Amino acid sequence: MTELAGLDTPSLLLERAKLETNAKRLSSHIAALGTRLRLHVKTAKCVEVTRVVLGEAGGPIAVSTLKEAEVFAQHGYRDILYAVCIAPNKFVRAIALAQRGLRLSVVLDSIESARSLAQALRGARAAVQVLIEIDSDGHRAGLAADDPRLLEVAAELARGGAAVSGVMTHAGDSYNCRSTDAIREIARRERDAAVHAATRLRDAGHPASVVSVGSTPTATFIDDLEGVTEVRAGVFVFFDLVMAGIGVCAVDDIAISVLATVTGHQRDKGWAITDAGWMALSRDRGTARQPLDQGYGVVCDAAGRPIPDLIVSEVSQEHGIVTHRSGDPCRLPELPVGSLLRILPNHACATAAQYDCYRVLGGGGRVEATWNRFSGW
Amino acid sequence: MTELAGLDTPSLLLERAKLETNAKRLSSHIAALGTRLRLHVKTAKCVEVTRVVLGEAGGPIAVSTLKEAEVFAQHGYRDILYAVCIAPNKFVRAIALAQRGLRLSVVLDSIESARSLAQALRGARAAVQVLIEIDSDGHRAGLAADDPRLLEVAAELARGGAAVSGVMTHAGDSYNCRSTDAIREIARRERDAAVHAATRLRDAGHPASVVSVGSTPTATFIDDLEGVTEVRAGVFVFFDLVMAGIGVCAVDDIAISVLATVTGHQRDKGWAITDAGWMALSRDRGTARQPLDQGYGVVCDAAGRPIPDLIVSEVSQEHGIVTHRSGDPCRLPELPVGSLLRILPNHACATAAQYDCYRVLGGGGRVEATWNRFSGW
Repeated sequence: MTELAGLDTPSLLLERAKLETNAKRLSSHIAALGTRLRLHVKTAKCVEVTRVVLGEAGGPIAVSTLKEAEVFAQHGYRDILYAVCIAPNKFVRAIALAQRGLRLSVVLDSIESARSLAQALRGARAAVQVLIEIDSDGHRAGLAADDPRLLEVAAELARGGAAVSGVMTHAGDSYNCRSTDAIREIARRERDAAVHAATRLRDAGHPASVVSVGSTPTATFIDDLEGVTEVRAGVFVFFDLVMAGIGVCAVDDIAISVLATVTGHQRDKGWAITDAGWMALSRDRGTARQPLDQGYGVVCDAAGRPIPDLIVSEVSQEHGIVTHRSGDPCRLPELPVGSLLRILPNHACATAAQYDCYRVLGGGGRVEATWNRFSGW
Repeated sequence: MTELAGLDTPSLLLERAKLETNAKRLSSHIAALGTRLRLHVKTAKCVEVTRVVLGEAGGPIAVSTLKEAEVFAQHGYRDILYAVCIAPNKFVRAIALAQRGLRLSVVLDSIESARSLAQALRGARAAVQVLIEIDSDGHRAGLAADDPRLLEVAAELARGGAAVSGVMTHAGDSYNCRSTDAIREIARRERDAAVHAATRLRDAGHPASVVSVGSTPTATFIDDLEGVTEVRAGVFVFFDLVMAGIGVCAVDDIAISVLATVTGHQRDKGWAITDAGWMALSRDRGTARQPLDQGYGVVCDAAGRPIPDLIVSEVSQEHGIVTHRSGDPCRLPELPVGSLLRILPNHACATAAQYDCYRVLGGGGRVEATWNRFSGW
């Protein structure tokens, strides 16, 4: 067990107790609504974090890259949804995964892709589940639930010998909500769009048994999952300032932070300068559009307690500029050179992606483990 | 040799010929002004790129992390400036590097740091060069050239037995210029501040032989380096849209791009969707403040030719939304699912940081090598 002061800075810290609480809260909520969680592993990209959420027995996961699928398959995960419309140049790797005997699901939203995938699957001697992406909020890929092309895509798959297994949608626009009522409204639309699309497919004779929805905000506030077979969510394992800003979590629930050291000051400007710049925090400014702009992150003391109104207001590659939110130089607290600080991230997925491991804090704030994470495609 | 179509997407491409031209142009300019280039390796973090710039014999480098210093020391680089004010918890690693016999220079800007570093160096049986950071443009760390504390810091070092070797400054504010005249003006201020600070130190009896200045914009447009002993620059090896936006390079000089595949469309909105989201491009929006906002990057065809007015206008983790700059759906060109595109980055340092290797393109646009890069601290 290492003390924080024994770590190099910047380092990425993970509080195990908060991770466990976050995992249990959402899993229980989804279970209480009578469906199951498909954990999105794109946030943590870490086998140990996934074990905390799903237990040793594992469970269904969603991935954002085939690399994630390959790594988790190696670790025994057998039910994997690659939740991004698949490009044709990824068919070979996807089929190779399916040939290892796992239940791999892929996603598409066009007749072109349906045709080329069905062709690739012929003679592949491996089953791949195919879901059609539904656009429930206009923010990304997918067909509208009532789009005539939905049935054409399914028919194209069927013609090629690849039945459509169901639908998936992601209400990513929930990240831009300003109230829990607005999130709940989007969550209902997400559910309704997916259920409606699946019903249309079934009415046309397609199997379409899978109805997959989800985002951390909608998963948190949805109150009825009738017709939904699984809920995908990822960022809830760590949470972040964007989630806190829309009321999905409290700032105190955020499980990761960046450990930084004060390297100097510009006292006339009210700046403390740290060794955590954008390389350590990411360039994500997700709170910029929220009522409370948190700059590049909320500054905490070494014990993880937010220092009132202290934020990272500017960054360069390896410098973070810490100021009072008001900019008033007199309100910068005493932070001698060498002081350890912890920065809460705007966006957990983006900040964690800058690191190759988590330093896991147990009871008493000591580092009790190092969990590797991976990156790339 | 691989064709582009044989690469997974997203991948990071590097055009060797452009790298060589970029390297030669700046190196020649600095040499013609009678001083030497200290290559900043933080952009590429790649030994092969450094060899292209400095040749097999190597040369002086600047680093932004001790990890860079350690990796490049392993590869034979013997003159390394860690160009960020050093935090006390990094003294042990820095001294360990110096004990390997290389010329390591570190930077500080406070009496506190001078005192603690001098103490750490006592009995270290290794020489570490110490530079004082000068603030020439108010954008980051450092003491103003006429700050009384400059002499106090030098005196504190001397009292502790660690002479001050010189000064360094970085006019990072040059990134925000709107004209080459403005950059040249900042370049002169950068030079004058460093030379003035070094003169003050020498007049007070300190050695202060090193006068280190630089940023890619100021290094490109400075016309007189009288009194300067070295110029640091990094991003010029690749260039990027931010540099093109301030006239430091042409868009055609940009040596790196992200290879992406079209995965689908929202034709009524004029969107083509690719597999290069912010994980592949970074969240850097450096052109947002420039007259021509390039979104998350300029879209080129597979041969690297920009497609007129096509940009990545929005991203999520693994999705890029490509649109015509006008947003007019009728002006989106035909880009069938599976099409390969290349995206020029806003900020080369940030985009390259998302990858573990460069796919190096030689003559005929074929992939002739894979060069590894590293990350972390």
